Parts: sequence; C-alpha cells; structure tokens
Amino acid sequence: MEYIFSDRLKELSGNSIREIFKLVSSSDFISFAGGLPATECLPIKLVERFSAELLGSDRAAALLQYGATEGNPQLRRLMTQYVKRAGIKGVRMENVLIISGGQQGIDLAMKAFVNEGDAILVENPTYLASLHIAKTYRANPIGVNSFEDGIDLDDLERKIKEYRPKLLYIVPNFQNPTGKTLSLEKRRKVAEITARYGLMVIEDDPYRELRYSGQPLPAIKSFDEAGNVIYVTSFSKVISPGLRVGAAIAQEKVIYKLTIGKQAEDVHTNSLAQAIVEKFISDDTLDKWIESCVPVYRAKRDIMARALKEYMPKSFKFSVPEGGLFIWGQFDKRSGIDAAGSFRRAIENKVAYVSGNDFFSDGSGRDCVRLNFSNASHEKLAEGVKRLAQVFSQK
Amino acid sequence: MEYIFSDRLKELSGNSIREIFKLVSSSDFISFAGGLPATECLPIKLVERFSAELLGSDRAAALLQYGATEGNPQLRRLMTQYVKRAGIKGVRMENVLIISGGQQGIDLAMKAFVNEGDAILVENPTYLASLHIAKTYRANPIGVNSFEDGIDLDDLERKIKEYRPKLLYIVPNFQNPTGKTLSLEKRRKVAEITARYGLMVIEDDPYRELRYSGQPLPAIKSFDEAGNVIYVTSFSKVISPGLRVGAAIAQEKVIYKLTIGKQAEDVHTNSLAQAIVEKFISDDTLDKWIESCVPVYRAKRDIMARALKEYMPKSFKFSVPEGGLFIWGQFDKRSGIDAAGSFRRAIENKVAYVSGNDFFSDGSGRDCVRLNFSNASHEKLAEGVKRLAQVFSQK
Repeated sequence: MEYIFSDRLKELSGNSIREIFKLVSSSDFISFAGGLPATECLPIKLVERFSAELLGSDRAAALLQYGATEGNPQLRRLMTQYVKRAGIKGVRMENVLIISGGQQGIDLAMKAFVNEGDAILVENPTYLASLHIAKTYRANPIGVNSFEDGIDLDDLERKIKEYRPKLLYIVPNFQNPTGKTLSLEKRRKVAEITARYGLMVIEDDPYRELRYSGQPLPAIKSFDEAGNVIYVTSFSKVISPGLRVGAAIAQEKVIYKLTIGKQAEDVHTNSLAQAIVEKFISDDTLDKWIESCVPVYRAKRDIMARALKEYMPKSFKFSVPEGGLFIWGQFDKRSGIDAAGSFRRAIENKVAYVSGNDFFSDGSGRDCVRLNFSNASHEKLAEGVKRLAQVFSQK
Repeated sequence: MEYIFSDRLKELSGNSIREIFKLVSSSDFISFAGGLPATECLPIKLVERFSAELLGSDRAAALLQYGATEGNPQLRRLMTQYVKRAGIKGVRMENVLIISGGQQGIDLAMKAFVNEGDAILVENPTYLASLHIAKTYRANPIGVNSFEDGIDLDDLERKIKEYRPKLLYIVPNFQNPTGKTLSLEKRRKVAEITARYGLMVIEDDPYRELRYSGQPLPAIKSFDEAGNVIYVTSFSKVISPGLRVGAAIAQEKVIYKLTIGKQAEDVHTNSLAQAIVEKFISDDTLDKWIESCVPVYRAKRDIMARALKEYMPKSFKFSVPEGGLFIWGQFDKRSGIDAAGSFRRAIENKVAYVSGNDFFSDGSGRDCVRLNFSNASHEKLAEGVKRLAQVFSQK
C-alpha cells in the first residue's frame, strides 16, 4: 500500500531533539540536547504521597472517571491564584483551560487562530516545537529579530505591517533556545503593539519559576487590556514533565474555542495528574520545592559556564542566562565552524547538542548551539564540554 | 478585541454530550447521555496499588521525566501481545503508538491522512466525536448506510467510487451509537474492499471487551493484508477514562506519521498512567477485572431494556446490543416524535439522552435516541426510563 499522507504531515519528519532523545540512552553518552529537568528535582516522594492520598480518598472514583474538557474545577480555581505570581490578576475560572502540557497550549492556540498559509511571527531563534506545530497547520512562520533584552520592537511592528500575521509566539523568560529574558519595558510594549494591531499573542512561560539570579518580571499577559494574550504555563519543569499538565489563561471566548479544539484531541487531561498538581499548589509545597531546586540548577549552569570558558575554542561566545535550562553559544563566523555539520562527529564522540539552525524559521544559525545544563551530573557537565571542545577544535 | 478564529473552529461549538456533561451534576438528575463506565467498575484499589508500587520503585524517576512520543517501550511491547485477543497477529513494537485515549487515535489518523475538503466515510449514524474531529480538519463526512449486521457493503463501494474518500471510520463492536456489531463476513469484506481501493480505515474498537452475550469476533485489522487499517483500542472503558490511555496499531510508516502528529499535540502520554495500564495487562489482572464487570454491565443493560419495554410508548422500537454501553431506539415516524425537539422538556423532567441527529452526518435521526445504561444505578435506570416515557408520551 502506498500511503498518501495529508499535506500538513507529508514532508514533516520528527523534530531532531525527539530523535536524539531516542539515540542517547547508553550510559556513557552525555546529552546536552534535550530540555529534561534534573532527575534530582523530580519530586518523587511528594508525587507518591499525593497520589496515595488522592486514590485513597473519596475523590478517587471521580479522578478515574471522565472529567470536563476544561479541566478539574478545583485546579482551574487554584490556577486563578497561581498566575498572580506572574502579575496576572482578575482571572476567573472561565479564563482557565487545563492542558496536557504546555505544548498543547501552543497547538490549541494555533488551531484556533491560524489558517493554512497564514503568517505567524516567532522570535528568531525560537522554540523549535513551535515551528513544528506551525507546520502542522501549514502556517508561514516569520522570524522577528531579537536583542539581548528580547524581541526587536521595530522589527516586530514592521513585520506586523508587512505580513499581517495571525499571531505572535513568544517566550518571555529565559527563552528557549537563547536563555534571553524580555525586559519589563518591552513586555509592556509587546502588549501595547500587538493590541493596537489586533494580533493574538501566545506567551509561553514554562521556565518562569526557574530563576537563579535577577528579579522576576510580570508577564506580558499582566499588561493585556485588549484580551489578545494567551498565557501558557506548564508544570513540566517545576514538578514533572511525565505528568503532562499545564494551563492556558485567556479571555473566556478564547478559552471556549481552545476547549473545543482540545475536545477533539484528547477529551481532557489525565485527572489524577491534575489532582496531583492541585496538591502541589494548594499550599506552599510547590514553592518550597522550587526553592530547593533553584540552587541545584544554578550550580549546574555555573559548572557548564565555567567549563565552556575553560575548554571551548576562543571563537565560541556565550552568555550566562538568569534562569531556565539552556546556554546558547555562537561561533565566530571566521572560525568556519558549522554546528549542524559537526553533529555526526559529536555523536561519535558521545556528546550531543542541538544545532542552532533547528531554531530559526529561515534555517540560519548553523554557527550556534543550544546546550542544556539541567539534566547532566556535575562530572558529566565538565566531561561533556571537554568532548564538545574536542569536536569543535577539529572543526 | 474581536477574535477572528480559524476556519476550522470558527463555526464549531462544543459537542452536545460534553455540554450536557456540565449540566447534569445535580444528584436528582438522571443522565443517559454520556458514555461513562459504571463507577463500581472503576478499579480504584488496583490503580492505587499499582500507582504506589510504581512510584515506590526504581522506575519512578523515569515515569516523572519526559518519555518517548511513541510511548513507554514496556507498554508498547505488551500491546503487541494484547491485541492478539482481537485476532491481530505479527504486531511488533514499531507498529504501536500509545495515545492519550482512543479519541486521540481518530484525531491523529485524520491529521495524517485528511486534507481540507476531502471526503471521508462514516457509518450513518456514527460516533459523534468522529464528526467533530472531521470538522476540525474541514473534512466532508459522507454517511454509509448500515444494517443490523453493520455497514452496507454495496453502499460502501458505491460511495468509495463516487466520493473518492481518504478514509473510512468504523466501530466494529457494539457500535456507538447503535450498539450494532459488524458480522464476521463483513469484517473480511471491509478489509478486502478498502484494500482494493487503497482506502485507509480507522477501526475504532473501545468496547470490544464489554461483551455480555454472543461470541467475540476478530478485528477488521486481523484481515488487513494491505496495511491500510489503523486499529485504535482504548483502556477508557475497561480500566479508567480519567487515565487517558489507548493505543493505535498500524504499519510502521503510518505509526511514524501519527507520532509526528502527536509530538506536536502533547509530546507524549502521561507516563505514570501508561505504567499503570502496563501493570494491568502484564498478567491476567485486567482480564479478571473485566470478567467481574461484565455481569454488572449486563444487568444494567437488561434492566434498562425491561424498563423501556414496560414504560415507553408503543411507537418506540429498540434492540438489545450484545455489549457496549448504549441502547439505540427509534420512534415510529407516524408518532411524530422529535427527540431533538423534546430535549428541553426532558431536561426539565431531570433526565437526559442524546438525540439521534447528533450522530448522523446529514443531521437526520431526530426520531432516534441513544441511551447510555452503564453509569446509572438499577433504581435510576428504571426511574429515568419512566421520566423519559413521560416526556415522550406528552410528545
């Protein structure tokens, strides 16, 4: 049988990180490719306790039964409070949709707003899954330049006028892949400019709580008066990615459409996982847990940064992010280093990274690498960087 | 802000069952509308035990971490054996994708094969979510007639020729909504006809294990030599819908595309839930559990059938299904009864059903009702039918 796949998936192959994920299971391999939380920051004992409490309680049957597509009411209610930490106020339950991980929020937002051929704006570079999702809706992603303090506002406005895009996808805190954080002033301006042009915004904020230095900033959504921002938060990085729980916060009309889109995909999010998250955020359990994890991540970031400084060729430049999971680096053009072309050699040398070009809508960025520091041990962080340095010294 | 939604969701509202689901939480309401398993058939104690074992084991960290989009390898391996009960042999791990409930299998199959405007074939009537999903891909669902022993093969072939559809969606066992089961001979023929025309088939089989009389039949997939059948199974009806775990079985090339589609939606299925299902099917735990539930469901079916016979107007005809969750009934045309039009009166009388027209691609079927018997107690089954009879006697 010759399969004739849909136009949306015909030419689409798996994203390279997920492919690497399958490769690197051998124990002597060191992967800086994924975005996995530290194993020591997975709250196994707490999940075990909460799961036992829930399944031993009166609620057990309800958690195993079908639930509402919008999510468990208890968790939706708590989320109205939870997002206050990002400066988002006045949220009612009707503004909350519980999703099966933050990624589903991006998917549902594009599903609700993007037609085939529509332009959408993304930061250049951007989270590669956002490009993958955009392709499944046959959207046309246009990259917007960014500076050290985030997106270039002039370029944003220019491209809104030129391409009349349907939405902007943006990661405000410790952006994936660059680690950059959008400045306070720019957050206000992004809300203002996009509202003026009636442009929807997906504000994807999975890393917010993983801040190792500097001061937390309010979300773009906190400046949203027009109701054009869909705020997406996730518990994957602070509790567990395996549980697949996140939330989208938006105007009720928007939540209604996202809900209809979700209904067609997975009916509702796993109810036990929702209730476990509820336990974490119904008191200060999650906050205390995050407090205990921040030093773990900070130490890993610092060890990788030190090793990069010590071992990598002089042509390699990087900055240390204030939070998140990634260090982004760039080779001097004159070095002639091609990160995409060197990948096979890196795999042979038992180390992995993601080449920059995976994150650019135009395929540029082959002189860049994204390095994840959150999942390796201290020893492997140093050893992995040495291996990388070998790979890039050979060119 | 005026929202301009995508063409695919612009005119789509929530499916009526999910809407009813939100209405009927008051305790004196009797709902025959949903498709909820019996509360007494949710294996709370087993889930509690398995969850504790898993979270207390060496595997806990892996279950809380990111997993492969394809699913946990342990569960995929077990699924290759599990589907033998449906006569499906020669399945390797590469033919298995773990999904977040059976519904995601329908969604991913349409995502991978259907372009905007494509015709797809469905039974008339069919599972209403399949129509909802089809709309999100802007497909054109064409209903194929069906008889007591399932789909009309002549009409199937005629419509394949006439509409050149991309796929056929079919529920072989205790079909939703009619409760009909496709005969053995027709299963073979459906495989043969669709293979001849290179038509993909989604064989959606969530109810298979809930058989209360008669003999189990092999799946259409068991006759699939061309590789055109995507078999979708689910643990929602036999373990728990709240866990959101199912599996799709297909040729490796097809699984690859479904996986890419899933990657963009929810990355992977909740890992703890996958491992809980694994515990159920790694020995005879699930089979024993099902064995204990079959009499529970059979009794409920029989009580509803008896009550319908006793209380409903003479113009109401129904047949007793061999399994599944639903009794489908039809009013004599001459009675003038309009099930859709009577719905508000039913709600006022504190009883709910789903009107037949929700299941027909052409909106016909207002003289039919789908009645769920699995979730109400014996008392409520009888009392609910009495209330229904009142509603339909007033006309």
